Amino acid sequence: MAIYFITGNKGKYAEVKAVIPQVKQIKLDLPEIQEIDAKAIIKAKLIEALKHKKGEFIVEDTSLYLDCLNGLPGPLIKWFLQSIGNQGLYQLSQGYKNQKAQAMSIFGYARNSKQIKFFQGVIRGKIVKPKGSKGFGWDQIFQPQGFKKTFAQMEQVEKNHISMRRIALNSLKQYLIK
Amino acid sequence: MAIYFITGNKGKYAEVKAVIPQVKQIKLDLPEIQEIDAKAIIKAKLIEALKHKKGEFIVEDTSLYLDCLNGLPGPLIKWFLQSIGNQGLYQLSQGYKNQKAQAMSIFGYARNSKQIKFFQGVIRGKIVKPKGSKGFGWDQIFQPQGFKKTFAQMEQVEKNHISMRRIALNSLKQYLIK
Repeated sequence: MAIYFITGNKGKYAEVKAVIPQVKQIKLDLPEIQEIDAKAIIKAKLIEALKHKKGEFIVEDTSLYLDCLNGLPGPLIKWFLQSIGNQGLYQLSQGYKNQKAQAMSIFGYARNSKQIKFFQGVIRGKIVKPKGSKGFGWDQIFQPQGFKKTFAQMEQVEKNHISMRRIALNSLKQYLIK
Repeated sequence: MAIYFITGNKGKYAEVKAVIPQVKQIKLDLPEIQEIDAKAIIKAKLIEALKHKKGEFIVEDTSLYLDCLNGLPGPLIKWFLQSIGNQGLYQLSQGYKNQKAQAMSIFGYARNSKQIKFFQGVIRGKIVKPKGSKGFGWDQIFQPQGFKKTFAQMEQVEKNHISMRRIALNSLKQYLIK
């Protein structure tokens, strides 16, 4: 049976397909519930998807968590970007002594609503002044630990090597081939 | 026909009932969609409610909007309180030159999904160090313009006089008696 990756994002689909070839893209207009726990958001989407269609499903969330804000914005990152942008997020972090942050990707997988599995990848780093023009979202302000450049200053290949999404994806792949 | 106020909050229900006597409280477990626009959240709830039950419905949202964050947190306030609390919100605002904020209440009213009306009340003020023990939520850090105390330092009667919820409510009442 096909595994459906629920996403409207072509780039993410290509990344997943490259690692797990049996995956098919599906766009479902599922409501995103208001929650700060990424797993709860993913779970709600998977449960909705299972109501609509028979099959196996994958949902992904990648969010940015600032230490100084006790983990905010997390899955609320898109509203932060919409309201204050990368420059605003950088400025906000400057009001604190600690600019450390983590980027976390979580994949949720389900073939029925009672068995939902999560796979995650985490990269530590810090919030810096916006730099670079590659990537998207908050790539301009996230500088991974051990690097002197932001995600937006890296080539795709280089980014993939340290990507939190790749870590999570490999973990999902291991589960699926067992 | 009865007008149903969809809320689990007894205090809010009492406040609305006092101004609009024909209102009845109803608890519906409606999902809160992830949105930063309070009207979109209210609208989604009203449309869901109309699917469940015949009648007229009221949904209310009261949120805090910081100038320095271009309006954040808005309806995301509950996640800010959960993550960093009033002290954290105060500290965050201290990273900026401008601590001005507004408290906005919006009531949405609908008898069918094509005709949704909104009524709002806004109070300007600023974010201050947490003070007082009355009220709830972010009352401790919101000091209304022209006052030297926070909402949490005011008696209910005094707060009602300047309440953004009362302004919105009066406007809804005017609409209903026309």
